[in-house]
Amino acid sequence: MTPDEFRRHGRQVVDWIAAYQEKIESYPVRSQVAPGEVLEALPPSPPETGEGFEGVLADLDRVLMPGITHWQHPSFFAYFPANASGPAILGDLLSSGLGVQGMLWATSPACTELETRVVDWLAQLLELPEAYRGNGVIQDSASSASLVAVVAALHRAGGGRPGRDGITARYTLYTSSQTHSSLEKAARICGIGAAAVRVVDVDPQTLAMDPACLETTIARDRAAGAVPLLVCATVGTTSTTAIDPVPEIGVVCRRNDAWLHVDAAYAGVAAVCPELRWLNDGLAQYADSYVTNPHKWMLTNFDCTTLWVADRAPLVGALSVLPEYLRNQATASGEVIDYRDWQIPLGRRFRALKLWSVIRWYGAQGLRAHIRSGIGLAQELAGWIEADAAFHLHPHHPLGLVCFRPLWPQLPDAEADATTLRIMQRLNDSGELYLTHTKAGGRVLLRMAIGAPGTELRHVRLAWDRIAAAVRAETAP
Amino acid sequence: MTPDEFRRHGRQVVDWIAAYQEKIESYPVRSQVAPGEVLEALPPSPPETGEGFEGVLADLDRVLMPGITHWQHPSFFAYFPANASGPAILGDLLSSGLGVQGMLWATSPACTELETRVVDWLAQLLELPEAYRGNGVIQDSASSASLVAVVAALHRAGGGRPGRDGITARYTLYTSSQTHSSLEKAARICGIGAAAVRVVDVDPQTLAMDPACLETTIARDRAAGAVPLLVCATVGTTSTTAIDPVPEIGVVCRRNDAWLHVDAAYAGVAAVCPELRWLNDGLAQYADSYVTNPHKWMLTNFDCTTLWVADRAPLVGALSVLPEYLRNQATASGEVIDYRDWQIPLGRRFRALKLWSVIRWYGAQGLRAHIRSGIGLAQELAGWIEADAAFHLHPHHPLGLVCFRPLWPQLPDAEADATTLRIMQRLNDSGELYLTHTKAGGRVLLRMAIGAPGTELRHVRLAWDRIAAAVRAETAP
Repeated sequence: MTPDEFRRHGRQVVDWIAAYQEKIESYPVRSQVAPGEVLEALPPSPPETGEGFEGVLADLDRVLMPGITHWQHPSFFAYFPANASGPAILGDLLSSGLGVQGMLWATSPACTELETRVVDWLAQLLELPEAYRGNGVIQDSASSASLVAVVAALHRAGGGRPGRDGITARYTLYTSSQTHSSLEKAARICGIGAAAVRVVDVDPQTLAMDPACLETTIARDRAAGAVPLLVCATVGTTSTTAIDPVPEIGVVCRRNDAWLHVDAAYAGVAAVCPELRWLNDGLAQYADSYVTNPHKWMLTNFDCTTLWVADRAPLVGALSVLPEYLRNQATASGEVIDYRDWQIPLGRRFRALKLWSVIRWYGAQGLRAHIRSGIGLAQELAGWIEADAAFHLHPHHPLGLVCFRPLWPQLPDAEADATTLRIMQRLNDSGELYLTHTKAGGRVLLRMAIGAPGTELRHVRLAWDRIAAAVRAETAP
Repeated sequence: MTPDEFRRHGRQVVDWIAAYQEKIESYPVRSQVAPGEVLEALPPSPPETGEGFEGVLADLDRVLMPGITHWQHPSFFAYFPANASGPAILGDLLSSGLGVQGMLWATSPACTELETRVVDWLAQLLELPEAYRGNGVIQDSASSASLVAVVAALHRAGGGRPGRDGITARYTLYTSSQTHSSLEKAARICGIGAAAVRVVDVDPQTLAMDPACLETTIARDRAAGAVPLLVCATVGTTSTTAIDPVPEIGVVCRRNDAWLHVDAAYAGVAAVCPELRWLNDGLAQYADSYVTNPHKWMLTNFDCTTLWVADRAPLVGALSVLPEYLRNQATASGEVIDYRDWQIPLGRRFRALKLWSVIRWYGAQGLRAHIRSGIGLAQELAGWIEADAAFHLHPHHPLGLVCFRPLWPQLPDAEADATTLRIMQRLNDSGELYLTHTKAGGRVLLRMAIGAPGTELRHVRLAWDRIAAAVRAETAP
C-alpha cells in the first residue's frame, strides 16, 4: 500500500469510525448472532490475489458488525467498561504507523522514555506512593501484571532460587472468594498450583477480606511448613467492587514477610478524583505491587494496564535473560530501562502513545469529570433501586457498579435466582441494554456497571425502566 | 473527542503517517539520542486541563522522533524485521475504533470467529498440518506462545496435576545453545526453573540441534529420575536462522513422551512460498505446538503471533478458570471457543482484523512476492560477501538473514571481535544503516536481516559498500 493509497483508505477508515460513533445507538448492544454464523459467512480459503481495501470495509459492515457486541454503546452495562476514546485510538494509530519495537531502550529510546514519563504522570494523577515513581510499566492486562507480581514475589521469597531451581518449597498465596480469577490462573502458571491458593473469608455484608482470618490462615500454613508468598488485596472486586482493607492486610503481610499485591484493576484510576484518594489507603506503607487498568475506566483503549512496584529488583531479577543478540552498549551501561525485563513477552508496542494522548487531551480535570459522571449516574440508579420495593439493592456501591436483584417474594431462592437470570437473558436479547450477573452470599445479583464515555442519564433511566417493567410483567397475575 | 473532532484529527494522523512513510529515508535509521534525553524533554507533570491534539503531533515531531529507531526504514537490518504495512495499520485502527473485548465468544462473537477463520487461512497459506485446523490462536508474542506451550505440556505430562498441585516432579526442558531466550524465561516463569533447561549440542557448521545428543541427554535425565517435558526445536534461529532437524527431533520426542514445540517465529511465514515448504518438515508427524510471527516478516504490525496446537485439550485444561461473572450460555453450551482459555491474559483486542486486512490486501501472491524479495536480496548480499576476501561468510543463509565477519587476518581473535563490534557501532552511529551482531563458534558475527517492506537492492548495496569501506579503512596502513 503506497502512502497515497494509505491516505485514501486511512480517511475511509477514520470516517467509518466517526460514523460508527455517531450511529452506535442504532445497533443492538449485545450481538444477536448464533455460534458459527459469522464463521460460516467468511470464505473458507484465503484469496490468491490481493483485493482492494473496500472489500474489507464492505465485509466489516455485512459480515462482522452483526457479530459485534458494542462495548462503547452507552447502554453497555455488562462486565466493566472498556473505554475507547478518540485520543486513545489516534495514539494507538500513531504507534502502528511508527511500527517500532520497544523491547529494549536501544530499539527505540522514545518508546521507553515516554512510557517512564507518562506512567509517572499517572502515578501523580492518582497520588500513588513516592516509591512507585520510576517503577511503573505498561502491561497488556491485569492478569499478566498479577502473574508478573507473583513471579517477582517468588524471586524475593526464594532469594532467586525459584527461577533457577524451580519451585522446591511449599508456597501459599492468599486471596478472598472475591479475588479475580487471574490470581488462580497465575498460581497455576507459575508452578505453585491452584491448591496453594487459600481463599480467605470475607465480611458477609461488604464482601471485603477479613484480615483476622488472613492472619490465622497464614499462621496455620506456616505451622504446616508453607511459605506465605503473596497476598492479593483487591480494591474494587470484579463481582461487586468490594474494597479489601489494605492497611490491615498490609500489617499481616509485613509480619509474615509476604508480598502484598494490590489489584485495583477497575477502581484504581478513580483515585484521579481527590475525594476518592481513600482508594490508595495503605499502598504507601505496605503494597509491593499495584495494578490498575486505564483501559477499563480511563478512556484508554485496551490494552493498557499499569503496574507499579515498590522495588524493581525482584521483578527484573525474575524476568531478565540476556542473550548475545540483545546485548548493546546502553543496556551494559546500566543507565537505561529495558522494559522487556518487566514483562512476560519480549516484544512491546509503543503503548505509551495512547496514554499520553489521553492524558493530554482530557487533562486531570477531564479525567475527573469522566469518573465523576459514572459514579453520579450509578448513585442515581442505586437510589431508584432502593426506592423500589420489588428489588434488593446490594448496599455497597461506592463507584460505578451497582448490584441488585429482584426480590421475587413468592419464590424459593433457587427458583428466584433462575427467574432473575431468565429476565436478564430476555433483557439482553432485546438489544436495548446489556448487563451481566454475579453471585454473592449464594444469591444471583445483577450487575450494572456504568462508565462508557457516551452513557447519559437517559440511558441509565431507559435500562432501569426496562428492568423494572420486566420484573413487574413477570410478577403480574 | 466528538466524532467530528475525531474525523479532523484522524485525518491529521493519517496524513502524518503517510508523510512519515514518504520521508522515512531522511531519518537516521537508529536513534542518536543519549539516555535520558527524551525523558528530560517531556514535562515532569501531567496537564491539569486538556489540550488540543495538535500539541501531541507537535511534540511527536519535536521530542519523540529524535528518539525513534526506524524499524520500517529500508536500511534497517538489525534483529529481525518487524514489518508494518498499510492494511495492517488500518486493520488495527478498526480494532481500536470498535473497542471490543474478545475474551469470550459471547463478548463479541465476530472477534472470536474472524480469528478462527483467518488463523485457519494462514494455516492453509503455509500448508500447515491438518491437525492444526481450528486449533490456532493469535498471541501477543512468541515468548508468550512458548510459555503457553510449556504450561500445556506440563498439563499433559502431569495429567493435570501441575496446575492443581504445583510442580512436584523434576521436569526437564530441551533447547540448543541457539534456542531463543524466551524458552529459558518460560522455564523460570512456569516453576521448573532455568536449571531444568538442558542445552543440547549443535552441529558446529549448521548450528542445528544434534538429535543424537538430544537422545543421550534425555536418557541421562530419565535415568536420574527426571521427566522429559518439552523439546523446543527452532526453524530459523534468532542468531543465524539455523534449522533444527524437526523430523529427527520428533522421533526422539515421540519415543520419550516429550512435547515437541516448534519455534518458527521468524522463518515460519516463509512457507507461504511453495519452494520453502521444507520449513514444515516433520510438523505433521511430530509437532504438538507450532509458533510463527506474522508481525516479523509477514507485513502484519506487532503484535500478531500465531500459535497452533495439534490438540487443544491440554492447552485449555491448563489455562481455563471460570468464575461466576464470566459464565454465560454460549460458554456453557460448549459450541464456542473462548480464546481467553488459550492465553495468559484474560482480555483480548480484535487482532484478527489486521491479519485479515493483510491477507486480503496482498493475497497469497503478494505475500510470496514479499518473502521472495527479502530472500533474493539476502542472496545477492551473500554473494558479494563471499566474493570479498576480507570477509568470512557464515555459510548458512537460506532466508533473509546473512551473517558474516571481517577476517582481520593480522589480529588475534578477541581483538578481531572487538574491532568488528567497534566498526558496527561506528556504522550504526552514522545513521545510514542499522545492523546487530551475534556470536557463533565463539566468534562475533555481524547480522544483516533483510525484509523491511521498503528495502530495495540499492539499500542493501549502500549498506554493503559502507561496511566494506569501513573495514578497508580500518586495515589501511
